[in-house]
Amino acid sequence: MKKLRAGILGATGAVGQNYIHLLKDHPWFKITFLAASKETKTYKEAVSERGWFMPKDISNDVASLTVHDAKNIHAAEDLCDFVFSALDAEPAKELEPLYANELPVVSNASAYRKDPLVPMIMPELNNDHLDIIPAQKKVKGFKNGFIVVKPNCSLQSYMAPVYALIKAGYDVDKLIITTLQASSGAGRPGVSSLDLIDNIVPFIKGEEEKSENEPCKILGKIENNEIKNHAGLRISATCTRVPVRDGHTACVNLSFSGEEPSFFEILNIWKNFKGVPQEYDLPFAPKQPIIYRNEDNRPQPVIDREADKGMAVTVGRLRKCNIFDYKFVCLSHNTIRGAAGGGILNAELLVHEGYIKRR
Amino acid sequence: MKKLRAGILGATGAVGQNYIHLLKDHPWFKITFLAASKETKTYKEAVSERGWFMPKDISNDVASLTVHDAKNIHAAEDLCDFVFSALDAEPAKELEPLYANELPVVSNASAYRKDPLVPMIMPELNNDHLDIIPAQKKVKGFKNGFIVVKPNCSLQSYMAPVYALIKAGYDVDKLIITTLQASSGAGRPGVSSLDLIDNIVPFIKGEEEKSENEPCKILGKIENNEIKNHAGLRISATCTRVPVRDGHTACVNLSFSGEEPSFFEILNIWKNFKGVPQEYDLPFAPKQPIIYRNEDNRPQPVIDREADKGMAVTVGRLRKCNIFDYKFVCLSHNTIRGAAGGGILNAELLVHEGYIKRR
Amino acid sequence: MKKLRAGILGATGAVGQNYIHLLKDHPWFKITFLAASKETKTYKEAVSERGWFMPKDISNDVASLTVHDAKNIHAAEDLCDFVFSALDAEPAKELEPLYANELPVVSNASAYRKDPLVPMIMPELNNDHLDIIPAQKKVKGFKNGFIVVKPNCSLQSYMAPVYALIKAGYDVDKLIITTLQASSGAGRPGVSSLDLIDNIVPFIKGEEEKSENEPCKILGKIENNEIKNHAGLRISATCTRVPVRDGHTACVNLSFSGEEPSFFEILNIWKNFKGVPQEYDLPFAPKQPIIYRNEDNRPQPVIDREADKGMAVTVGRLRKCNIFDYKFVCLSHNTIRGAAGGGILNAELLVHEGYIKRR
Amino acid sequence: MKKLRAGILGATGAVGQNYIHLLKDHPWFKITFLAASKETKTYKEAVSERGWFMPKDISNDVASLTVHDAKNIHAAEDLCDFVFSALDAEPAKELEPLYANELPVVSNASAYRKDPLVPMIMPELNNDHLDIIPAQKKVKGFKNGFIVVKPNCSLQSYMAPVYALIKAGYDVDKLIITTLQASSGAGRPGVSSLDLIDNIVPFIKGEEEKSENEPCKILGKIENNEIKNHAGLRISATCTRVPVRDGHTACVNLSFSGEEPSFFEILNIWKNFKGVPQEYDLPFAPKQPIIYRNEDNRPQPVIDREADKGMAVTVGRLRKCNIFDYKFVCLSHNTIRGAAGGGILNAELLVHEGYIKRR
Repeated sequence: MKKLRAGILGATGAVGQNYIHLLKDHPWFKITFLAASKETKTYKEAVSERGWFMPKDISNDVASLTVHDAKNIHAAEDLCDFVFSALDAEPAKELEPLYANELPVVSNASAYRKDPLVPMIMPELNNDHLDIIPAQKKVKGFKNGFIVVKPNCSLQSYMAPVYALIKAGYDVDKLIITTLQASSGAGRPGVSSLDLIDNIVPFIKGEEEKSENEPCKILGKIENNEIKNHAGLRISATCTRVPVRDGHTACVNLSFSGEEPSFFEILNIWKNFKGVPQEYDLPFAPKQPIIYRNEDNRPQPVIDREADKGMAVTVGRLRKCNIFDYKFVCLSHNTIRGAAGGGILNAELLVHEGYIKRR
Repeated sequence: MKKLRAGILGATGAVGQNYIHLLKDHPWFKITFLAASKETKTYKEAVSERGWFMPKDISNDVASLTVHDAKNIHAAEDLCDFVFSALDAEPAKELEPLYANELPVVSNASAYRKDPLVPMIMPELNNDHLDIIPAQKKVKGFKNGFIVVKPNCSLQSYMAPVYALIKAGYDVDKLIITTLQASSGAGRPGVSSLDLIDNIVPFIKGEEEKSENEPCKILGKIENNEIKNHAGLRISATCTRVPVRDGHTACVNLSFSGEEPSFFEILNIWKNFKGVPQEYDLPFAPKQPIIYRNEDNRPQPVIDREADKGMAVTVGRLRKCNIFDYKFVCLSHNTIRGAAGGGILNAELLVHEGYIKRR
Repeated sequence: MKKLRAGILGATGAVGQNYIHLLKDHPWFKITFLAASKETKTYKEAVSERGWFMPKDISNDVASLTVHDAKNIHAAEDLCDFVFSALDAEPAKELEPLYANELPVVSNASAYRKDPLVPMIMPELNNDHLDIIPAQKKVKGFKNGFIVVKPNCSLQSYMAPVYALIKAGYDVDKLIITTLQASSGAGRPGVSSLDLIDNIVPFIKGEEEKSENEPCKILGKIENNEIKNHAGLRISATCTRVPVRDGHTACVNLSFSGEEPSFFEILNIWKNFKGVPQEYDLPFAPKQPIIYRNEDNRPQPVIDREADKGMAVTVGRLRKCNIFDYKFVCLSHNTIRGAAGGGILNAELLVHEGYIKRR
Repeated sequence: MKKLRAGILGATGAVGQNYIHLLKDHPWFKITFLAASKETKTYKEAVSERGWFMPKDISNDVASLTVHDAKNIHAAEDLCDFVFSALDAEPAKELEPLYANELPVVSNASAYRKDPLVPMIMPELNNDHLDIIPAQKKVKGFKNGFIVVKPNCSLQSYMAPVYALIKAGYDVDKLIITTLQASSGAGRPGVSSLDLIDNIVPFIKGEEEKSENEPCKILGKIENNEIKNHAGLRISATCTRVPVRDGHTACVNLSFSGEEPSFFEILNIWKNFKGVPQEYDLPFAPKQPIIYRNEDNRPQPVIDREADKGMAVTVGRLRKCNIFDYKFVCLSHNTIRGAAGGGILNAELLVHEGYIKRR
């Protein structure tokens, strides 16, 4: 198979750098287009100013690519088959529709997450939401492309475990969650070291709203050419920032509305949970999306975040809750599964389903 | 007033060192007796082996005190009016009753916290539980002393805010809590640095049980010469360890069984909350036991833990909860209010109430 | 004594906030004027935007002061007797001479540190450099004021120990130094948490040059109405940033050109070292400027940085060097002794010497 | 090639776990024997008590191996072709000669590092020291085996850069070094988190002596059947512990006794430096043993420690020194190159040279 040509919008920021880092040697995709807020002769030059923060050096073929002005949609049209958008919310709001007129846009930005015509995809959970794409194109008048988004990184760790239980027939109706989120979630320069040496910050702007609302869209259904939020689930989240580089932890208290599964049934459900990425054997799909650890003191960011190349979720400490039914702790790598890796898996799904193809 | 003579059991450990640090220049108490698991000629010599970890040097008068074998109760009888017990749970179980036969024992240990004859005191909340002391002495046959304990450090931050609401007439029936606890809570050497560099540990042995059960005793009532646990409150706790030196944070979701107060009413209740330590103007009493911060991102350990010399609790982020009624974040200094400082305040209350006096 | 009226230039930045924090209840100074890059109705409002980072709240009298535009020198003239400058190097270069035309300027900025007419004062070391002030005023044409600066924070920890040896008659000719500097030295937001979680950064822009050159001016002499650098000392510095909030550590290798003192002689020299701040009993003077710790593993930032309210230097690990004569480790609190506290001590010296007075 | 059978002494400790982690899928070696201070039925059971700290789970074939009592040398004889010793210094002193009587012992322990009959090997530097083995066997009366050791982790980062210059004909005569060492260097539990949150510890017991003395043996020559230390080099080291998980950094000041190379010559020497591991293409050999980074702020532990799977050394900040000739900063992964990875490379060299073979 000839590789598909991928563009990256917001290529110099933290998420953009992660895309470049993770796409190295990708079997299906090849980076052919980079864009940022200002044009620069080469990518190497562009990042030399603000720093390249990945643990491996930029590969030479990417280092020598031109960085286009993100407003130059024509260049993208010429040079790629689809784009990853790692833009901030503001420019994403303006630019993503312009790109979507010409090309598939696989986005990490929050700009269109609430739009009932834009599918917010976690491939193991709601790949069927891609069916909204024709309606999206029609209503928004996109000529050749569309927008697909991924949800916020704060909810990656608990969505698969919760969904697996729902899929197995157990209705989850309430979740009280406290997250302990990593510094890299705020990008670069992000959080000052003076806020995270010997300290935690019990607040992340906008994060609790996203953690509470986005899951209901992901669990929703397409009705009348719109994605309708799932109504049966209420979530209350407290989001905190802790002195950890990578890996968002969530402490979850969960209640079922009806019958509740036994402890061993839950472990079994999680162990056997698979979605289409596993079925289709997509390159970035973790073999086992949910890994359960029996040790008392797991998951831990430093040990578990890299599980299955950072694409699996690790869960532990399942136990009865005095008030709700169960409680447990889960962890996901926020810059891999929760950001660029999740975006790549979305693109792989879109390729498999025929939404992204060679132009 | 001539100072009362205080002994410290477990004087070389982390809590014992904190007692010595905090009692320097105490207006009512003077350290006259030290005990540990083995006798040493001087305290200075005893800590030179395992290290002295306080930010100020040991005062000369304490440095030169003999460290007695903790089994030598006669020495304590001769040399002090009461003892602080900073023993570990095991030796506390054996030794505290032997001391209590002769002297008031103000304990930090968990050994007798569940005993319905032993008051577990937070002076602003349940000073009336001291009334159990005569029954305790009688049933246990203590000749001259008694045991008073303080609760676990994990619950210090939320107990006063929750109690203040109950006292104001609003019945709290459910609490879902996630704590982010400081390293110093595990003493010395405590948690390995390899567990807390770029990491959190979502488990602390025994801590969740204490966090769930001890509040119900503190809120209980004396009936038929026993402390009966408060039955109307259920708590579910998840306790985690984070890379912070001092200061336990708790993220609290709270539900009322009946009528709920308004946002401003709660702020008002907290602001005006006072207990007997404030009324009696005890030396270690914080002026305002509950400090509410309006800033979005507070409380933070590094900024708020030292509030009123580490004896006040700081609360922030009060907001509506999607599932329960309210949620908020609170913080208390675990080695001051949550350990030695709390013990000293207990002793001050006992002096004021006439339970500790010059022998 | 009626308090002198102090202004603070750069009042909203990290150093400015430290000045306000440390000047609370100062026996000689009262803050009456604040200036920053833009005018704001009240200081409270000005810092609410960028945050107030000190552990105690702003006192009400400062919170309600107007923040003037730093270019408004006339306002300062009306409202204060002298100013502390916590400006960045660029605005300091422009504005400090304008202020100095009217008022004494006690500066933390680096703009005029190399100027042979501007004394760079460490009060225990070179108070005699104040004698250059008349020449400075004359040459620069300052009508009513002058500029006095303090050196960089990186050298505070080793300058007093080295100077004490020189003063005792032992010529130090070579210093090889590696510093481990705290995050707060870079101000707010300063260093990203992603650079200091599980990491060190072996580079601080401009810091090695300052560490190597400024000591030679401090140790210099006034000749022909100029401060001439001390020629006999060469310094080679490597400056690194480590995950510590406050407290710069320096590992020092030291060589004498002539006779070398014995181990005990050095300890004695350090123990007995005093300067004019101690002689004059200035309010911010540490009782003992150099504290030596005998323990193997000291000084440590978290234990030693607050020694004598953060104004003393702590030294430890004196031992023979295989190559030079001795090596040792020293520590000083960079935001207190190394910044605002050092500036305040300079101002106190200027008051005592009659250079700052009631206008 | 049939894999050689490797044993691990001290298999449950931090270094032992690292060996097991790194030897997974090794092309030449297969773990067939494990030993520790006490016998346990399976390795899985043995580490469940004290914890398994590696980021990947133990492979099933190792998990099910019996852990033998380390004193049971006969078991090792039967089960393996050679052993890695990850014993502590004390047991190593006693047991390594007993093993060496039967088997080649590739050791990380410090017990025999000073012995002039025991080669202390860094394969790129002094592979010729293996020639001492026959003399060792003869003098010590080892029937079938011998002892080869590796040096301390603190010096791994600077030895190759310094040696490369010497090899190129430039005599290095003085090194003043300050190290910033990672927590993992102290093993498990190692350093308390209370010593490394917001803190550094400027002392590591025994480390400065090793850093100063071991290089002279490594650079030495075999004369009269003994390894004679290199006499022309003096080193002065200050060793500190910093809040970093992995990766020892060294700040080096270097002086040449004779002619000094130019800046570009040094870069060239380092870039082109190769040793026998590269020549023989040993499995654990880094392609380029010394990597130089041009960026101002490198090397950094979190970015550079994993270079070439943790086996390369990264150097940066080469610049002139005011006192010596040059200064630079270097970094090496202490648990890989500096411990188990270095031991594995030693064993590979021994296989290549015919000292270890199938029994």
